Amino acid sequence: MALIVQKYGGSSVADAESIKRVAKRIVDTRRAGHDVVVAVSAMGDTTDELLDLAGQVAPIPAPRELDMLLSSGERISMALLAMAIHSMGFEARSFTGSQAGMITTADHGSARIVDVTPIRLREALDEGAIVIVAGFQGFNRDTRDITTLGRGGSDTTAVALAAALEADVCEIYSDVDGIFTADPRVVPKARKLGTVSSEEMLELAANGAKVLYIRAVEYARRHGVLIHARSTFSPNVGTYVLGPGMTRPDGEGEVMEEPIVAGVATDLGQAKITVVGVPDVPGKAAEIFKVVAKSGANVDMIVQNVSAAATARTDISFTLPKTDAATALRALSGDQDEIGFESLIHDDQIGKLSVVGAGMRTHSGVSATLFEALSIAGINIEMISTSEIRISVVVRGDDLAEAARVVHRAYGLDGDADAVVHAGTGR
Amino acid sequence: MALIVQKYGGSSVADAESIKRVAKRIVDTRRAGHDVVVAVSAMGDTTDELLDLAGQVAPIPAPRELDMLLSSGERISMALLAMAIHSMGFEARSFTGSQAGMITTADHGSARIVDVTPIRLREALDEGAIVIVAGFQGFNRDTRDITTLGRGGSDTTAVALAAALEADVCEIYSDVDGIFTADPRVVPKARKLGTVSSEEMLELAANGAKVLYIRAVEYARRHGVLIHARSTFSPNVGTYVLGPGMTRPDGEGEVMEEPIVAGVATDLGQAKITVVGVPDVPGKAAEIFKVVAKSGANVDMIVQNVSAAATARTDISFTLPKTDAATALRALSGDQDEIGFESLIHDDQIGKLSVVGAGMRTHSGVSATLFEALSIAGINIEMISTSEIRISVVVRGDDLAEAARVVHRAYGLDGDADAVVHAGTGR
Repeated sequence: MALIVQKYGGSSVADAESIKRVAKRIVDTRRAGHDVVVAVSAMGDTTDELLDLAGQVAPIPAPRELDMLLSSGERISMALLAMAIHSMGFEARSFTGSQAGMITTADHGSARIVDVTPIRLREALDEGAIVIVAGFQGFNRDTRDITTLGRGGSDTTAVALAAALEADVCEIYSDVDGIFTADPRVVPKARKLGTVSSEEMLELAANGAKVLYIRAVEYARRHGVLIHARSTFSPNVGTYVLGPGMTRPDGEGEVMEEPIVAGVATDLGQAKITVVGVPDVPGKAAEIFKVVAKSGANVDMIVQNVSAAATARTDISFTLPKTDAATALRALSGDQDEIGFESLIHDDQIGKLSVVGAGMRTHSGVSATLFEALSIAGINIEMISTSEIRISVVVRGDDLAEAARVVHRAYGLDGDADAVVHAGTGR
Repeated sequence: MALIVQKYGGSSVADAESIKRVAKRIVDTRRAGHDVVVAVSAMGDTTDELLDLAGQVAPIPAPRELDMLLSSGERISMALLAMAIHSMGFEARSFTGSQAGMITTADHGSARIVDVTPIRLREALDEGAIVIVAGFQGFNRDTRDITTLGRGGSDTTAVALAAALEADVCEIYSDVDGIFTADPRVVPKARKLGTVSSEEMLELAANGAKVLYIRAVEYARRHGVLIHARSTFSPNVGTYVLGPGMTRPDGEGEVMEEPIVAGVATDLGQAKITVVGVPDVPGKAAEIFKVVAKSGANVDMIVQNVSAAATARTDISFTLPKTDAATALRALSGDQDEIGFESLIHDDQIGKLSVVGAGMRTHSGVSATLFEALSIAGINIEMISTSEIRISVVVRGDDLAEAARVVHRAYGLDGDADAVVHAGTGR
């Protein structure tokens, strides 16, 4: 008998039928002899609807009250899920974040977990109950106020519960079968990975893969939680995310050699800003990125052109989330005279392609394969950046899908059949 | 500076516009220099929608989970209300039933308040904040579970908060101007009462008046809370409900003599069951009403006919809420042989008219006026029951409105102009 933590996102509990389906899935796990703790998100579009209401009554909703408001979403889904399980003849109890002992910082809207004291959950498990916990929410000990964890909060709730309860596995359910070598909507021949290392998963998530949130993967790696990403709609084994020293519980997937490339991630959510005609003197780049950072923008890739000797000026390009571009541009314009650049170019038609693989550390020629594949396909590379286990390139947004397909093939990742196309997941 | 508790029902906070209107009303009270504590119901039809969802996932929802589910409704409305106030430049903080210290029995769905420990509310008031509390909900100390108070719960929350905080007044807002001498939809010439005694209010509420819930009035009388029933949509003074020894804070309404009749209540929600041919021997009535009580039905009026000497059998009629009739009939049919009656007649076309007034204690002839007025109008009386300050009669349902109008006129209650017609209130 194992202790299994399961997380179901908003699309898995979007309506009464979905909730009953999830309830059956949970009951099946219980019937198999396991203790089950479930973290659940708000139903379907509930969070967006609540945000919309908040916007109607207050232009800038008070953060404490916004958390109070949003936290009601999981109360609804978790109570309905507990009822559904109950009516199948199994004892189930739902707990809010605060009842579950999910203690966080006081940062409303983006609280971090500081401690988990699942006393009531342990009691309920000892009494044989299935435990349902509201994802995405916690409370602060000092203010005694309700908090929410921000984006990817429910995944993090599940992983934190798994760590605190020393669960055998944390199953993250979504409408996708697991982690793929590429987004199947972009690369139809993408294959499901049996396992992926947590460091690869972090790079994939940070560079556009949507199945798992980077924060939950980080938490799992730090606390030694085994994640199993799988589908709500199929009984198939999904993808195990293995931290250092971990192995699959089913003993499968033990390969002699790691594949060089685990997957290809694509991201259409970035924009590129080019600062044109920056005086080529020390400290200018620092000035620019201090201004950008102060605007709250999250800079990703940076490229500085070779200086044109005649003018002693250079161009600096960087990428950042599309949603941050307007603020960054405004901040830079405001300091144009001080920095002394000539103009700004805003380009939101870019696409980022990243190749991720732990094997890159020990294999050469990985980047050559990437550049060659893109060259043959006639796709121009605009920017390049690398990490220890990743190479990213910026191409035209229109070229991104084709780029992903040729690169996926070049690394020998193509499967035999087309993958099932999937949609996004909840919070 | 006074401490004022205000209660707003579901129809007062049905949408974003209504919430902003209520927020303005609260802010106006604060601007006038008062401390304000608000109890709020769930928005409009939220509770019904949640109940509907519960019914879809479980035929008989687990009571603990149903309370968890329903309690989310007030979290939404209270957070939105606090945000709206906040965006008007006033500090506002919302509190769940458990944060507000609303301690109840563990009876899910119909919990009774056992203690109120509003420590956090006092702190917030001391810091100058407007306090918003979720109506209808509390928590149980032993189980540490969330509970709901059942019908009229938000009124009771408001009155209980007013008692615990020793508020100067508890304002119950609805879409009606106050307590009327009759339902203005039935009797257009009904007048708003400036004051009504709590014992009269209890009789009116128990006999069909919908503005205040009997439970809240009882709580207020027991704890010496002054209730002011008034309209969300007008600044007019409403009706003060005065317990023993209380006076109006504005000093008005001090009359030398109490009016004999405070008002006329009408109720179309009752049915009549007649048990025909009951053996006229001791103990039969007890037998019948034990069976009815066991079915969970709430018997109101009882009439036993004079026995027909020839047959040694009699008929017993009683009234009960229409919703209880089917269960009671089933229970009686099941025990027909044992009790020995001949048949059952079910009549759901009755109407109950009640005349309520504390002055009845000291004035004779009150019932004569009632009977005479109905007789002149040609309306037949089917049953009669009285209490110390009330006379009720059952008439045909079709005759009820006409009966109310003639009786209202006969007691000199008619106003000069027609009253504004109103709708029902929330939970």
